[in-house]
Amino acid sequence: MSSYTPSKIGADGYHGITDIQTRPLPDTVECQNVKSLPAIDVSKLKITLAKELKPLPELGPLTFGNVMSDHMLVLSYDPFTGWSDPEIRPYGGLNIEPASSCFQYSTNLFEGMKAYLGPDGKPRLFRPDMNMARMSRSATRAALPNFDGEALQILIKKLVAVDQRWIPSEPGYSLYVRPTMIGTRVGFGVAASQHAVLVVLLSPSGPYFPKSLATPRRRAWTTLLASATSIRAWPGGTGEYKLALNYTPCFAPQKDAEKQGYSQILWLLPVETPKGKQWKVTECGQMNFWIVLKRDDDGIELVTPILDGTILPGVTRDSLLQLGAQHNKGSPLPGLSPDLQITAREDTFYMSDILRWEQEGRLLEAFGSGTAAILAGVWKVGWEGRDIIFGTTMDDLLKGGEEDVNGLGPIGKALYERIVAIQLGKVEGHPWSVPCE
Amino acid sequence: MSSYTPSKIGADGYHGITDIQTRPLPDTVECQNVKSLPAIDVSKLKITLAKELKPLPELGPLTFGNVMSDHMLVLSYDPFTGWSDPEIRPYGGLNIEPASSCFQYSTNLFEGMKAYLGPDGKPRLFRPDMNMARMSRSATRAALPNFDGEALQILIKKLVAVDQRWIPSEPGYSLYVRPTMIGTRVGFGVAASQHAVLVVLLSPSGPYFPKSLATPRRRAWTTLLASATSIRAWPGGTGEYKLALNYTPCFAPQKDAEKQGYSQILWLLPVETPKGKQWKVTECGQMNFWIVLKRDDDGIELVTPILDGTILPGVTRDSLLQLGAQHNKGSPLPGLSPDLQITAREDTFYMSDILRWEQEGRLLEAFGSGTAAILAGVWKVGWEGRDIIFGTTMDDLLKGGEEDVNGLGPIGKALYERIVAIQLGKVEGHPWSVPCE
Repeated sequence: MSSYTPSKIGADGYHGITDIQTRPLPDTVECQNVKSLPAIDVSKLKITLAKELKPLPELGPLTFGNVMSDHMLVLSYDPFTGWSDPEIRPYGGLNIEPASSCFQYSTNLFEGMKAYLGPDGKPRLFRPDMNMARMSRSATRAALPNFDGEALQILIKKLVAVDQRWIPSEPGYSLYVRPTMIGTRVGFGVAASQHAVLVVLLSPSGPYFPKSLATPRRRAWTTLLASATSIRAWPGGTGEYKLALNYTPCFAPQKDAEKQGYSQILWLLPVETPKGKQWKVTECGQMNFWIVLKRDDDGIELVTPILDGTILPGVTRDSLLQLGAQHNKGSPLPGLSPDLQITAREDTFYMSDILRWEQEGRLLEAFGSGTAAILAGVWKVGWEGRDIIFGTTMDDLLKGGEEDVNGLGPIGKALYERIVAIQLGKVEGHPWSVPCE
Repeated sequence: MSSYTPSKIGADGYHGITDIQTRPLPDTVECQNVKSLPAIDVSKLKITLAKELKPLPELGPLTFGNVMSDHMLVLSYDPFTGWSDPEIRPYGGLNIEPASSCFQYSTNLFEGMKAYLGPDGKPRLFRPDMNMARMSRSATRAALPNFDGEALQILIKKLVAVDQRWIPSEPGYSLYVRPTMIGTRVGFGVAASQHAVLVVLLSPSGPYFPKSLATPRRRAWTTLLASATSIRAWPGGTGEYKLALNYTPCFAPQKDAEKQGYSQILWLLPVETPKGKQWKVTECGQMNFWIVLKRDDDGIELVTPILDGTILPGVTRDSLLQLGAQHNKGSPLPGLSPDLQITAREDTFYMSDILRWEQEGRLLEAFGSGTAAILAGVWKVGWEGRDIIFGTTMDDLLKGGEEDVNGLGPIGKALYERIVAIQLGKVEGHPWSVPCE
């Protein structure tokens, strides 16, 4: 017995079917046909080009994610008819009923990717398979319809090709790609949405920390306030999924941190350990967090919190772990001695560990990583009324002059340069850089 | 120095101004003019009636929240021009850019209220001031624009009056009122939205547990699976605010509970206590949770978890605490002896307490409370591989015959009948029942 009763509500074409009549009872069954419904069919792509193309924005004042390109990719899912034919059409508003679950219950998820122009003048994506796999996991966690990630990847490449003129070729610029899925079930019953709209948006983006905003220079460095009051994610929550709902709770605490003079929050989680209550370090701002430690033998350790369920499995994070580990295995990082011993590892650490490392003089650098900023140097962390300064990094930076990138120390900068070279397709044949063709 | 730079994006009229150019730096200031911007002005209300009114739905198959009335109230907020003139217009889609924060970062909140027809034939709302105050707190927590709750309440009353024919007069039916606020800032920078759209929707609603679905009868009773894997809310999170984002994380665990034969989840929070790790009881489904306990002196205790930051401060919850306390103070609950001693209290309790009360034979009833279901009886709670049965309730229910309401025991039923009488305006002059005029 199915719980779905077709009943037209509204007339915007996205839905009009209420798939759950009431809060589900134990005998509510899933739509039996889901497995045989049409999947995304790339061959059915319909392209409607904009009649008038927008002027490209000036690169100078361009920052992150404020200008949309000419076109977007749109698909929708209906539990009776499956995935619609994909469409590339001019960027514009969606007509959605206000009683839809995307507004009422925040059934929304997204991904962040970047497209670059390679040395051959062709657009390239960075590890798009990772984003597709994570997006699929997010859809499952949000109980939204799932999709064929390989088909979506092909469509994204076609969209990027259509809007190729929007990819800036200046260093530090790229075309940000934002796949987004929203639930469009209409009705107030608190239940999963089996209706969805999937859109992919493109936005030409400048450096996350533009030079124009970085006067005096230290403004470009991220300063973190470690928070013992607001908790971003929790075991049994959704911190490891790229759900839109993880972001809104951070806005008010973020504003408070800014009032106290910090640019971002270092998110902590209180945990009981054999040594008593400890503050586990998780993420910073909307980035994965990293610490560079001096080892006893003059090598260094590159450490990021372990994926404990509260932490987003970042594509940049995964890449940095691999690039760090490869330094002594034949792929040395640029500007660093191949003899420098680097250990890259995931580990659990607490604020008490950071304080101990500070006392031991082992704290070298800290930075955040993510698709938007790539790497962002952390200058200081406020905790319990004082600042933990990443002083070694600061000295090195002050020596470094104008060549500093995002306030990074030597290790962060080496990783940044290596990953950007791969993203730009400058490392020939690297499997992470995928041409759009 | 303001961070706002007007720049037209899109053309749907709701926004087109990107208020944060990049991730905020410490010198980013709030829009200086916010305090002097126009507030909601009730006198400017514009009413555009639908050219054709919809047929009213049959009440029989009508359940919760699936049909929208003819009209909706719409307002929008812009950080430069403040609140727009309010408008009542035909219910329909909103045209919103897909790069808006309501989709990208789930900056959405809502309220749930009910309108009833009083004995005088006039519409009445139940404690609307409580909903307006909570909605304002939600807006602050979501870093969305705030609003004048008294003005919004007047507008809601006008909307209800316009769509008065949608209020069913059958017992158990009502017109559900759903104020909703969504953030409409355009752009991918992770920051609060200072653009918003506020809509109020109306939906004629039948019993939350309709009789047609309650065959055999016990189907109508809520059965709960206590979850030690999914955590709805945590300290430092947003559980005490009515944010849309609290709901999506519950959908996948809810589906799992249904597969195990339970209708809802009893949400727990692991906490360390002097006795070791304990599972604190918080909410059930999307309702506040209640237990009725036998006291040593043959009186009863009505207990609901304390508002510890993870629990929604329900309007029904607050009302039940007051109604319970008034039983021995001159306002006895219907069908119960005025001599029955009732203590109504908020308290912290754990699963271990429920197990102990079960062993002591003190567990009488359990139920959930909320605006949608009002009160919903709980028949059993699954925990650690077995079911805790609220047996006394069940015996009483089996004796009770067809007159049972929502699977409630005698205490729950008495509270239900009392609160519904007030909601319907049958308790003359009761301050909780507010006429729409």
